[in-house]
Amino acid sequence: MDMRHIGIITKRSDPRALEATRQLAEWLVERKRTVTVVNDIASAAVIPLGCVERRSQERLPEGQDLVVVIGGDGTFIAAARAVEEVDVPLLGINMGRLGFLTDTSRDSMLAAMERVLAGEYRVEERMRLSVEVVRDGKTPLVCRVLNDVVVHKGELARMMEFDVSMDDQFVFSSRADGLIVATPTGSTAYALSAGGPIVHPALNAILLVPICPHTLTNRPIVVPGAGTARITLTANGLDRLLTLDGQAGFPLSDGDQILVRRSSHTLRVLHAPDRNHYTVLREKLRWGE
Amino acid sequence: MDMRHIGIITKRSDPRALEATRQLAEWLVERKRTVTVVNDIASAAVIPLGCVERRSQERLPEGQDLVVVIGGDGTFIAAARAVEEVDVPLLGINMGRLGFLTDTSRDSMLAAMERVLAGEYRVEERMRLSVEVVRDGKTPLVCRVLNDVVVHKGELARMMEFDVSMDDQFVFSSRADGLIVATPTGSTAYALSAGGPIVHPALNAILLVPICPHTLTNRPIVVPGAGTARITLTANGLDRLLTLDGQAGFPLSDGDQILVRRSSHTLRVLHAPDRNHYTVLREKLRWGE
Amino acid sequence: MDMRHIGIITKRSDPRALEATRQLAEWLVERKRTVTVVNDIASAAVIPLGCVERRSQERLPEGQDLVVVIGGDGTFIAAARAVEEVDVPLLGINMGRLGFLTDTSRDSMLAAMERVLAGEYRVEERMRLSVEVVRDGKTPLVCRVLNDVVVHKGELARMMEFDVSMDDQFVFSSRADGLIVATPTGSTAYALSAGGPIVHPALNAILLVPICPHTLTNRPIVVPGAGTARITLTANGLDRLLTLDGQAGFPLSDGDQILVRRSSHTLRVLHAPDRNHYTVLREKLRWGE
Amino acid sequence: MDMRHIGIITKRSDPRALEATRQLAEWLVERKRTVTVVNDIASAAVIPLGCVERRSQERLPEGQDLVVVIGGDGTFIAAARAVEEVDVPLLGINMGRLGFLTDTSRDSMLAAMERVLAGEYRVEERMRLSVEVVRDGKTPLVCRVLNDVVVHKGELARMMEFDVSMDDQFVFSSRADGLIVATPTGSTAYALSAGGPIVHPALNAILLVPICPHTLTNRPIVVPGAGTARITLTANGLDRLLTLDGQAGFPLSDGDQILVRRSSHTLRVLHAPDRNHYTVLREKLRWGE
Repeated sequence: MDMRHIGIITKRSDPRALEATRQLAEWLVERKRTVTVVNDIASAAVIPLGCVERRSQERLPEGQDLVVVIGGDGTFIAAARAVEEVDVPLLGINMGRLGFLTDTSRDSMLAAMERVLAGEYRVEERMRLSVEVVRDGKTPLVCRVLNDVVVHKGELARMMEFDVSMDDQFVFSSRADGLIVATPTGSTAYALSAGGPIVHPALNAILLVPICPHTLTNRPIVVPGAGTARITLTANGLDRLLTLDGQAGFPLSDGDQILVRRSSHTLRVLHAPDRNHYTVLREKLRWGE
Repeated sequence: MDMRHIGIITKRSDPRALEATRQLAEWLVERKRTVTVVNDIASAAVIPLGCVERRSQERLPEGQDLVVVIGGDGTFIAAARAVEEVDVPLLGINMGRLGFLTDTSRDSMLAAMERVLAGEYRVEERMRLSVEVVRDGKTPLVCRVLNDVVVHKGELARMMEFDVSMDDQFVFSSRADGLIVATPTGSTAYALSAGGPIVHPALNAILLVPICPHTLTNRPIVVPGAGTARITLTANGLDRLLTLDGQAGFPLSDGDQILVRRSSHTLRVLHAPDRNHYTVLREKLRWGE
Repeated sequence: MDMRHIGIITKRSDPRALEATRQLAEWLVERKRTVTVVNDIASAAVIPLGCVERRSQERLPEGQDLVVVIGGDGTFIAAARAVEEVDVPLLGINMGRLGFLTDTSRDSMLAAMERVLAGEYRVEERMRLSVEVVRDGKTPLVCRVLNDVVVHKGELARMMEFDVSMDDQFVFSSRADGLIVATPTGSTAYALSAGGPIVHPALNAILLVPICPHTLTNRPIVVPGAGTARITLTANGLDRLLTLDGQAGFPLSDGDQILVRRSSHTLRVLHAPDRNHYTVLREKLRWGE
Repeated sequence: MDMRHIGIITKRSDPRALEATRQLAEWLVERKRTVTVVNDIASAAVIPLGCVERRSQERLPEGQDLVVVIGGDGTFIAAARAVEEVDVPLLGINMGRLGFLTDTSRDSMLAAMERVLAGEYRVEERMRLSVEVVRDGKTPLVCRVLNDVVVHKGELARMMEFDVSMDDQFVFSSRADGLIVATPTGSTAYALSAGGPIVHPALNAILLVPICPHTLTNRPIVVPGAGTARITLTANGLDRLLTLDGQAGFPLSDGDQILVRRSSHTLRVLHAPDRNHYTVLREKLRWGE
């Protein structure tokens, strides 16, 4: 992969991220790369006019060979959404705290980019989940997530009731705070807090993790990635919601069905060749101490 | 305790509970007891006028020697609220599914009452928690719970941040879906689903159970009942709520402090002499199988 | 698959299993099938001479089209060992308590066999793990397991210390009671008791589940089935053992390495076409109640 | 409490502990205190003859006003055993890694002792458990523990079966790797690794934590400290053992009963006045990060 055209997506609210963006943009321009930055970031980071291209974040990835994400895992997830259709690989730079997705530190940013331009990197494919809400024969919501889709009770409800099936095989009925359907990438996000296992991102698998289930034997389940999970809201409930990669609350109604399956759009992520998934796990979970 | 005046609190929506109420009222009247029933229940259960007294549920417990609760654990919790100030003991009759609080079955209702009138029963004290919300030097909420008070994120928030202290000793800062502060009675309710231990009701203790904590080592803690827990909302959050015994959502604001301590108002509960806490645990959690 | 030659492996110590063996053997002989039974079982079950063939359990599977296992999951695992090299499919009949592997009940045994002879069944492939102990350049142990291999401390030790790597990528160092390396089949056995997730048997995956780890963040991990797990005993320890499918205790020494990878010998299991993995899970874990 | 006579118990195998012992002994002698050191420690630490008294570790605590423990939690537990009958308070100095029991660091040893001699300290009572094995009407084992008593399967067994009762009320039958009966002090030791809650040491309570129970609903239970737990080995088992504070393996037989109750001998522990239980918890469990 020849790295000629490089976009940068930045965490707006972090001054260090803006400073890193300016530094990286200048460094890349010196190396004769075409650099594209999000409109308001370019201004905020005081990057001289003419030096870089400017676009909206949504349109930024088009035609790029790589998009560098400068921020935390939240910024990375937003960037992942931006590259859904155009399939440009991402590289994540964290601003201080190591993230599962942003595993290159600010200090090693330029050294890491040096190696990337020299072709020294590892490309990893991360699966996404495709999510559909089916209501009265229509699909009021269709989208994709990188981490997880969560069906959960709203603030007024005491719990929610739902049925889960895989490929039309009934799995279980549950009364719980909710259900997390996660990718292996999402296994180290919310699903981990809810008691789920860590699942290696190279595994073609989907996790089903009930949140505070009333039935104590309702344990986390890992199923083949080729299957389709169907969650059906059973009881008449006051308020139930869908949360997508931790964002937005799509309101659900009685009888709604949520279909979740592996998306054909995988995400490509670049890593330093000397870092692997376990390196990041050890650091994040402090296993080394 | 001479059982002359007996009140009945009934689950309105359950026809079997209404039928059981009618049967129990007649049976008690035959045995020369004064029976008081909630106004609309008397009508719904078709109990003849003149036979029993009728009052609102709030005023029903005054002057009674015993209040029999016919319904599930939800009805029992409502009844517990009604007897908070007047300190009348409760006896719980379940309609089918055994409850932790309603541990006498419908079938053995009359036999159990026979023994109660004969003085054959065990009285158990259950602690309540007193809850206060402190905001800008005022206390917009003061109440008591039998099971638990839950501080939790609303539906739009991704998580909430809070500090916990016991008797002004800082315990931990946490990022989580919420925190359950429970009595031993509440240890078998929501706290159990969230991963808490079972705590015997005779123990003078308070449970602190984080819900889906971001920090995996934030484990459930059991502290002495003599202490005061203080939860302080730290980060600026969109929506945070207080749920009291699974009811209502009292909205919280940045900087709110929630004080939880043992209430001086304990609840007295009557049990059959041959049943103990472990009998109920085994049946509810299916340990025998 | 034409079912002409059928072997039966039976739980010796269970009189009902012997009786079921006799009944099944007669029923199959009536249907002109060649039946082979384990030597002493034939005698114990009072099966007439000449009616069936008799062999040792180890040699029984050779040349069979199917081996029916009559007993519990323990008998099934022993049978799985007997068919390792000859690759004959198994069908498991349980004697009372449903097993994850023996999912046909005694009562429906003949009805199930009727359908099997008619070609109405579902064949499922279950992965095995290949296990090797490497010590001083030699391999004192090589074997295969269907459920799990457990590296654990002996009775005198307080805990054990070990390193885990996957494909020579270091995963973690741990101090724990032990480590379970399990197949998806084994995810519902010992690994479940130790806090592991349920993993669907169609998934090509290996589970690593630490037993009572000292570091609370040492959570269960699910890794791709194509990888090789290497467990290295680090500290100088008194006694450490290897348990294979719950059997035998192979003693380990300082510096021993245990290599675990997917075996090329999968096991074929026959199921009734109307039962799937979730049916069994629901019944075993009492999710339906 | 006038601190005239001070004993020191030291971790033999740690040169830094020996050096700290020598330093503390000299420092105390300068301050006109009588110092007693364990025989071989005095030699190993090169403490001049005549300067300090020397005794066996078992006899060392007699007549002391305080015993300082220099080492880790293991050394502290051994010291706790030595002061069982004579009721001398302990102060624990850790050599590097903070311990739950040894919560004064090596660096602050002399400053802490300065304050202790000035009467600035907090005394905490820690409960012990009294353990009795009853076999054929005899009691082949009677002892006390500070952390926990563990009934567990030996290395050849697959699991063990036992009944648990509290004050002759049957609690549950279990099939598991074992059962931990712990004090609040022990709640942060092995019981925590097995999934138990953290219990504050001021609580008069006993923890029952099953190890890898076959029945998933067999959750940790916290019971009043006034009760007596009785564990009865039910099934005929090959090998079962009792471990006391992580030491020794007392072999058990079919039908053995293990009685565990609160001991009347509590342990007094001295702490710096500015440190409380939560300070140590936060540091050990890394809640602050």
